Amino acid sequence: MRRSILALLVIGLFLHSALADSPEPNQDATLDGFSMQNARTEREWESKFRALPNAQQQRDYMQLLSARPHHVGSAYDKQNAEWILSKFKEWGLDAHIESFKVLFPTPKRRLVELIAPTHYVAKLQEPALAEDPTSSQHDEQLPTYNAYSRDGDVTAPLVYVNYGLPDDYDRLQRLGVSVEGAIVIARYGNSWRGIKPKVAAEHGAVGCLIYSDPKDDGYFGGDVFPKGAMRPDQGVQRGSVMDFASNYPGDPLTPDRGDPNAPRMTASNAPSITKIPTLPISYGDAQPLLAALTGPLAPEEWRGALPIAYHVGPGASKVHLVIESNWDLKELNDVIARIPGSIEADEWVVRGNHHDGWVNGAEDPIAGQVTLLEEARSFGELLKQGWKPKRTIIYCAWDGEEPMLLGSTAWAETHGRELQEHAAIYINSDSNGRGYLFMEGSHSLEHFVNNVARNIEDPESKLSVFERDRLAGITGAKSDEDRKELRQRPDLRMDALGSGTDYTAFVDHLGIASLNLANGGEDDGGIYHSIYDDFYWFTHFSDTDFRYGIALSQTIGTVVMRMADADVLPYEFTDLAETMQKYNKDLQKLLQSKQDEAHERELELKEGAFHAAFNPRKPTVAPPPEDIPPHLNFAPLENALEGLTKSAERYKTAFNKAEASGFPGSDKLLATLNQKLLQSERRLTDPAGLPRRPWYRHMIYAPGVYTGYAPKTMPGIREAIEQRRWQEADTEIARVSKVLENEAALIDSAAADLDTLTR
Amino acid sequence: MRRSILALLVIGLFLHSALADSPEPNQDATLDGFSMQNARTEREWESKFRALPNAQQQRDYMQLLSARPHHVGSAYDKQNAEWILSKFKEWGLDAHIESFKVLFPTPKRRLVELIAPTHYVAKLQEPALAEDPTSSQHDEQLPTYNAYSRDGDVTAPLVYVNYGLPDDYDRLQRLGVSVEGAIVIARYGNSWRGIKPKVAAEHGAVGCLIYSDPKDDGYFGGDVFPKGAMRPDQGVQRGSVMDFASNYPGDPLTPDRGDPNAPRMTASNAPSITKIPTLPISYGDAQPLLAALTGPLAPEEWRGALPIAYHVGPGASKVHLVIESNWDLKELNDVIARIPGSIEADEWVVRGNHHDGWVNGAEDPIAGQVTLLEEARSFGELLKQGWKPKRTIIYCAWDGEEPMLLGSTAWAETHGRELQEHAAIYINSDSNGRGYLFMEGSHSLEHFVNNVARNIEDPESKLSVFERDRLAGITGAKSDEDRKELRQRPDLRMDALGSGTDYTAFVDHLGIASLNLANGGEDDGGIYHSIYDDFYWFTHFSDTDFRYGIALSQTIGTVVMRMADADVLPYEFTDLAETMQKYNKDLQKLLQSKQDEAHERELELKEGAFHAAFNPRKPTVAPPPEDIPPHLNFAPLENALEGLTKSAERYKTAFNKAEASGFPGSDKLLATLNQKLLQSERRLTDPAGLPRRPWYRHMIYAPGVYTGYAPKTMPGIREAIEQRRWQEADTEIARVSKVLENEAALIDSAAADLDTLTR
Repeated sequence: MRRSILALLVIGLFLHSALADSPEPNQDATLDGFSMQNARTEREWESKFRALPNAQQQRDYMQLLSARPHHVGSAYDKQNAEWILSKFKEWGLDAHIESFKVLFPTPKRRLVELIAPTHYVAKLQEPALAEDPTSSQHDEQLPTYNAYSRDGDVTAPLVYVNYGLPDDYDRLQRLGVSVEGAIVIARYGNSWRGIKPKVAAEHGAVGCLIYSDPKDDGYFGGDVFPKGAMRPDQGVQRGSVMDFASNYPGDPLTPDRGDPNAPRMTASNAPSITKIPTLPISYGDAQPLLAALTGPLAPEEWRGALPIAYHVGPGASKVHLVIESNWDLKELNDVIARIPGSIEADEWVVRGNHHDGWVNGAEDPIAGQVTLLEEARSFGELLKQGWKPKRTIIYCAWDGEEPMLLGSTAWAETHGRELQEHAAIYINSDSNGRGYLFMEGSHSLEHFVNNVARNIEDPESKLSVFERDRLAGITGAKSDEDRKELRQRPDLRMDALGSGTDYTAFVDHLGIASLNLANGGEDDGGIYHSIYDDFYWFTHFSDTDFRYGIALSQTIGTVVMRMADADVLPYEFTDLAETMQKYNKDLQKLLQSKQDEAHERELELKEGAFHAAFNPRKPTVAPPPEDIPPHLNFAPLENALEGLTKSAERYKTAFNKAEASGFPGSDKLLATLNQKLLQSERRLTDPAGLPRRPWYRHMIYAPGVYTGYAPKTMPGIREAIEQRRWQEADTEIARVSKVLENEAALIDSAAADLDTLTR
Repeated sequence: MRRSILALLVIGLFLHSALADSPEPNQDATLDGFSMQNARTEREWESKFRALPNAQQQRDYMQLLSARPHHVGSAYDKQNAEWILSKFKEWGLDAHIESFKVLFPTPKRRLVELIAPTHYVAKLQEPALAEDPTSSQHDEQLPTYNAYSRDGDVTAPLVYVNYGLPDDYDRLQRLGVSVEGAIVIARYGNSWRGIKPKVAAEHGAVGCLIYSDPKDDGYFGGDVFPKGAMRPDQGVQRGSVMDFASNYPGDPLTPDRGDPNAPRMTASNAPSITKIPTLPISYGDAQPLLAALTGPLAPEEWRGALPIAYHVGPGASKVHLVIESNWDLKELNDVIARIPGSIEADEWVVRGNHHDGWVNGAEDPIAGQVTLLEEARSFGELLKQGWKPKRTIIYCAWDGEEPMLLGSTAWAETHGRELQEHAAIYINSDSNGRGYLFMEGSHSLEHFVNNVARNIEDPESKLSVFERDRLAGITGAKSDEDRKELRQRPDLRMDALGSGTDYTAFVDHLGIASLNLANGGEDDGGIYHSIYDDFYWFTHFSDTDFRYGIALSQTIGTVVMRMADADVLPYEFTDLAETMQKYNKDLQKLLQSKQDEAHERELELKEGAFHAAFNPRKPTVAPPPEDIPPHLNFAPLENALEGLTKSAERYKTAFNKAEASGFPGSDKLLATLNQKLLQSERRLTDPAGLPRRPWYRHMIYAPGVYTGYAPKTMPGIREAIEQRRWQEADTEIARVSKVLENEAALIDSAAADLDTLTR
């Protein structure tokens, strides 16, 4: 369900075809983690592998899997799981289905009615389109709604709150507008959607509408479907509003299936269900509501692309909102396939993509699922040809991702202990498109995944995907500093993992080094979570010839193979250490800017600047005075980082020396070393978890409590600063420092093991 | 016709009424240019003056003057001139009308028709509104059109060019779209409107439509008229498209009335008439045209607020455009009033505001004209009470400003020699609104006008208008640097003069130190140059109680009095020198950034970055390689600036000493000194004028050839750099250096005169 992260500003011309370097590697080059001889063998198998994924196959899979609505609990969702199982088996993989029962509400009654100053009843219905054959499957489509909204029937004034995030409420306060007792209308975007009802409830709102403004994914971005790819006026974004980031993802009733002592909830006390009724609407339905608002004009950056003057409200507006759901348990079907390892079978390489959709879900998730299927089919071929992966490979087609990672979380929790013992990596995808390779993940994998990207050919430019990302990044860079980094830093910087897709339980709860990979950035779209995300749309407006589907199969398949076959697991820690140094600097800058802002506000209040700027016809409220943030003790973190950097350098030297010697030593010695390395990401976790959300145990990466999708790095420290909990910030600095010290100790110990090999 | 320059970001709260300092000056404080004794007398007269302007009077004048359309050549325009003349006389001023014959085309035939791919005929008509009594005077209203568009009848594909400025055409080139042979549709804004057909013609277009996008002054900014102040869907901005900035303003047929040798033109060879037919349209008429475009999606920052996907075109679009005008000569009537000086009658203080409008013109120009009238009436009162200004004061109500400064230019050219000999200052206004004091002008007047602003009370905050501007500037500042400057620099920085209103001939052609003053920034509006700029609109949505009309009368009246009464003309040169130093730095930064950009482009072309970013479904063209700009010799300018700074300091010291001594010396000695000082702005001119536009003689200020409204400072140098004429840039550095050396010499000589007084 993760939406395309960003559309790079991409401009260019086919100028220098001579420049297109060959991404196919020199067969004699080294390969991190492989002896020279094993590197050669590996490259041969990888070359064979990359020739196998087939575009017509991906297209056929997509047509089949998206032929009917396949949400959790639907007949076609189950049928798809069984079909995937049969395919895995057909390709010679050891596969089975694991089922779970989970709470998944579906709507019984939905009403949005403007009752003053004018009258309008929202349609809440996406029309079928003649061009688009699956858009007419109304009987099987889930209605437009937000899953895990609590039931409610409220009538209240309406207030427009922009994206509905904490800063927006600060701005409302400046405008003298309160949402206490009101229904808010927020636009989709800039956060995980569940943040919007959460923040609204924190400010006293009694209901929440979320609409798709045409500025964000409608006509402002291009022609609307079916003429173009963007959202038509009655298109609605479904989606979960579960408050997973403050609590836990997965089934709201089972906070941790892996922990027999974890409490079991009911629908009425589950903390991740919204506090206020919430419903999504189209911009066709939103326009009459927004046009009915008076009160202050919305700040300029709040205004969308509807042809109206955006007011904040409430004026005389009154809205009646009703939501009532069936609160049933439904069955999930995760499809799990296994290729046993030949030497270090206890080390697992885990790969997943979900198969459930909100409706027909061709882009999300089937575009990702078909890349996974072609990887699996190709591995079946390689196995027949004699390929024997050293480690165990596990392929997972998750169910129930859309409601909030239900299938992956249930499976990861259930198998939590084994996974923590065995998993070397989890590699996720969720959908796919045309364009650049987007890389997010654990930074001990940054160098590794950069090297894979150097070996995959981009279908359009014929450059390596690494080089295309790098060069296009240069033309689109927002600052000289970014451009300089792209020219000088050997590896492309990888974004940290936030949430919104199935890696969450793996990285955040279990501490397994994870990657999330997708192609995209060359096409826009506005069909996300609507009935129009279907085969017709995808094959007209996205990766229409599946060339990027093939590229993603090649990329992820290479990651899987290289990780499964390496003599020594190719984690690399200098990129990690450098990234952690950067986070430390970011945090200190964040604190400094908070101090500067508070000083400036204090001074402006004293000078009377707000009085001077007061416009009696557009009255505003001065911001409240704010305590000046204290200085914090970053010394423990800086000391830990110095240690980590030194250990990472030491490991790198030892690793390079051992690799040059062909990693001498018995399989057993190497296995012991690998078992140690495999724990490296676990060292970054703390069993006590983050403040107020113990399910989240990773001390470096977490979804933000007020962002959801977007990561907060060193989240304990960062959110303490953002939320002005100064004492907690100091405590969290110490906790993060501790895990970094533990990490450094593990790296040192692994370096010593490597030194032993070559002594 | 100058539109409100900017709406400051204004936010605040009435918090500290105790902070409101009294703007009424201490009667014993010094006053620049006055002996202690004369300062006391002056303050008494100024206090009396500031009590006289009356809001009801201003309201009555506005109601009368805007009661009917009063464009050039209309019966009511002439009637207004005669009424103003009668008022000046009634108040005891020596007044007369000066008339000129000028070319002023008015439309006979207008047609805009979309003929493919769909059919639409533009309405080209602003509807009457029941609420608004003068909106129905259709028989007297000028149709919606752009004056000085050449006649034409063209049928061609349509291309959207954003604001239609040179950078926009660079962007079109990147998108692979040419306007050769096309009709362009540009949106109003970001430049003088006449730049748009000029640049379009330079790129081969055959016609030009200009429309008001609702993003710029329609519903995006608030409710539309008559519910709110913004432009309704059929509202059209009339206006001149004369190419004055590359040639000369005023009557196209008489390039310089003051020069008997200047050529005399005909309508067919006058260079300031557009090269292609041009017509303005409403967004109601623009929407079907823009919606008919296909081709590349417009860049994000080009997209307005219409509910469509903005494409660049042309696709299958075809537009038929017809314009035919009456090319008659019309009569202008400037109303000129004089208060003779009692001591230095040969030194003139000139004050003007136009009286002609495009239609009823309540905001533009009557809101400015009524402030001028209340100044004149109040001076009549003071004269009766015995006030005897030392210098001659000349009040001017200009005609024909809207077509392009016809009345002020004709008068200034006709009286050019006298003005150059006698004028100490020209003070302009053009309209007025609620809010802040906007100050633009010659920098030798910066300190002077800041001091006046310190003595005028802001009607809302009760702070001085200086302090309100300063403090609100702090809350709205875009950078720490700007905030710091507002806190530390004694005077508020004054903007340079560009063009678009009646100071142009005075400052740019004659070299008379000028000011342009207005209040505004607290209200938005979208009635500019439409039939809705009328008494109903102004009294509902702008300075409804005329409190800011009074404040502007007080401000400008005080400027006039203080300038007319001072013992020594209160020019100040350290602000001038510091500002010139800043312009020098800006120019060097501009060159540096052009060099950096060219280097970066060269590198990206070499790296293949444009190839990497090429998106085959959205093809783009790489930018052409560009020569690296050479280093230029700024040494002469830097040397001249060092000299100017030293002279300014020397003068300041001498001036302060002489002032403290009460400016001892005979009237004749002082008159000699003042005659010298009065020439100081003239020293900044060069009779040869700017490259390719000799009418513009000021070497420091000019309207940009590609901006029109906005100034280019040190224009010879700046535009040479912008237009990549490197040799010319070096030549112009030398010419600017020369006038600054001349200025320094004059200042030195004046300082020596002052020293003589106190020796």
